[in-house]
Amino acid sequence: MILQERLDIELPIIQAPMAGVQDSTLAIAVSKAGGLGSLPCAMLNKDDLLRELATLHAQTNKPFNLNFFCHTPPPPQPEQEAAWRKVLTPYYQEFGLDINAIVKGLERRPFSTETADLIEAFKPAVVSFHFGLPEKRLLARVKSWGSKIIASATTVEEALFLEAAGVDAIIAQGLEAGGHRGNFLSDDLDKQLGTFALIPQIVKAVKLPVIAAGGIVDTKTVAAAMALGAAGVQAGTAYLLCPESTTSALHRAALTKDSARHTTLTNIFSGRAARGIVNRAISELGPINPSAPVFPLASTAIASLRTAAEKQGRANFSPLWCGQNASGCKETSAAELTRSLTAGL
Amino acid sequence: MILQERLDIELPIIQAPMAGVQDSTLAIAVSKAGGLGSLPCAMLNKDDLLRELATLHAQTNKPFNLNFFCHTPPPPQPEQEAAWRKVLTPYYQEFGLDINAIVKGLERRPFSTETADLIEAFKPAVVSFHFGLPEKRLLARVKSWGSKIIASATTVEEALFLEAAGVDAIIAQGLEAGGHRGNFLSDDLDKQLGTFALIPQIVKAVKLPVIAAGGIVDTKTVAAAMALGAAGVQAGTAYLLCPESTTSALHRAALTKDSARHTTLTNIFSGRAARGIVNRAISELGPINPSAPVFPLASTAIASLRTAAEKQGRANFSPLWCGQNASGCKETSAAELTRSLTAGL
Repeated sequence: MILQERLDIELPIIQAPMAGVQDSTLAIAVSKAGGLGSLPCAMLNKDDLLRELATLHAQTNKPFNLNFFCHTPPPPQPEQEAAWRKVLTPYYQEFGLDINAIVKGLERRPFSTETADLIEAFKPAVVSFHFGLPEKRLLARVKSWGSKIIASATTVEEALFLEAAGVDAIIAQGLEAGGHRGNFLSDDLDKQLGTFALIPQIVKAVKLPVIAAGGIVDTKTVAAAMALGAAGVQAGTAYLLCPESTTSALHRAALTKDSARHTTLTNIFSGRAARGIVNRAISELGPINPSAPVFPLASTAIASLRTAAEKQGRANFSPLWCGQNASGCKETSAAELTRSLTAGL
Repeated sequence: MILQERLDIELPIIQAPMAGVQDSTLAIAVSKAGGLGSLPCAMLNKDDLLRELATLHAQTNKPFNLNFFCHTPPPPQPEQEAAWRKVLTPYYQEFGLDINAIVKGLERRPFSTETADLIEAFKPAVVSFHFGLPEKRLLARVKSWGSKIIASATTVEEALFLEAAGVDAIIAQGLEAGGHRGNFLSDDLDKQLGTFALIPQIVKAVKLPVIAAGGIVDTKTVAAAMALGAAGVQAGTAYLLCPESTTSALHRAALTKDSARHTTLTNIFSGRAARGIVNRAISELGPINPSAPVFPLASTAIASLRTAAEKQGRANFSPLWCGQNASGCKETSAAELTRSLTAGL
């Protein structure tokens, strides 16, 4: 019960923040059901973030989690961008698009002083970070509001780093997890461990409660995570078919096919390794393309192809984020899913 | 208890066959303790295999497992071999060795009619296969002796294939496992799933008992595997420090260091993906080197470097097979380890 006490939640279930496929609706449903709902904030501009925060506060007085990225925004990379556009040119031609008319889309921004200024008044119960932590001063400021801090570790080294930095719980993100890897001390994907190897080693290394992520889809997997020593779990993929998610129809369709078993880590959609279902873009351009600009710059040029393909009813160029076990995806309400994950525990 | 009944063993623990680091001594100790001891046979010549079988029969009347490979031996690849030797030449020079004087070492041979002729008289209780299955006729022959058949699957597709072929239980080998990946329907390593995602999906797909492999090191991980629906487990890395194993002193030392956390799948030691601790050879030549000849041909040329480096007291060119969780390795007897894995279950 240490995690529930620390985060003031009823069930040891955290809904993974998933930018692009959910908003406050999903977070509210999960928090109301006794879990910890999460709002992915990295792609929200100021107005949208304030509106979502207002909605969250209006609809629930249960704790929820605001999730932010902590990458260092890179300087523009004109040469890398040119190389990437050269790689994408044949596809632009295929879709009849002009590669010189690329429009910058939603940006992924790291947590900053401006973000802290914006959310301070709301004193969020939990703030979670991906790709490391913000600078010390900023982290201290968030903690000064009474917010509990959780953050992702993909290796034992990262877990030790987070513990030393003073977080309240560690999300141990196994290699099975969908979406972006949270690695921040090394870019070497070989150092990323499967959930089954990662959880017990982090549990052994730190004193903090450990939240297992990667392959958590149902009661059995929650029980297994607990057997490995986890204090709670973070589930993402399992929520993708919930009516409260904003997952696109194409993404939903892909999740229910056998081909959802074939996922991979790819950098072509953002510049960082993230797990999604293998589609045409990944097969032909990836999974890891050395020409892709660094995170988050790679996302701009491929976005137009996604839009064009989706207009044709194809998910060929969409990031179909998904963990290695989509078999747990059910078209059930987020509340029911949240409760079912701990049924019989 | 379905697995114990089917294989006539007391504990649902299978000791993973590990060529190069064990012989019948380890298998006997595990079988005597109530688990299923395994003898890796792929690298044994006729005389050695007969001697080991005689030893096994002399020392225990408990069931044991004979493990064989099922790869298709490739024709000689002179061009690939030349390319590989070119890659290795600087290292041969460094060690003062002549790359034109390479001596063929122990060969990895697939299960064949000759193997069947050899082992028939012993009617082994269990025969296990890696890299698929032998041809139908041969498999039927082994089954006709009353031998139970187990084989490795690394994907749901492979599990379905094995079930259709009539095996008695399936080893679900998660990505965390040390040594050679058992994949046989696809060489695409992206299709390999972590233990946490693989076990429940195979359990769901087949009616056979599923044996979890990959990251199984102690009571907690056994309990977690059972929670995921496994009927038993196969543990390998955990046995590497047992006095009954023939693990080299250099390999033992590597397993007890923090650097054992950093393993990877590499093809440089054999031509097939296998998980081992990252050392100089992997860092500089791998992890996956496109010049390496296909399995098992790559093993010949690198073997001399291993021998030379080990003579200098270095494990820099040794295959340090190891799963993603070496934290369970203890210098304890194989019997004690076998019993401790199921303590409290």
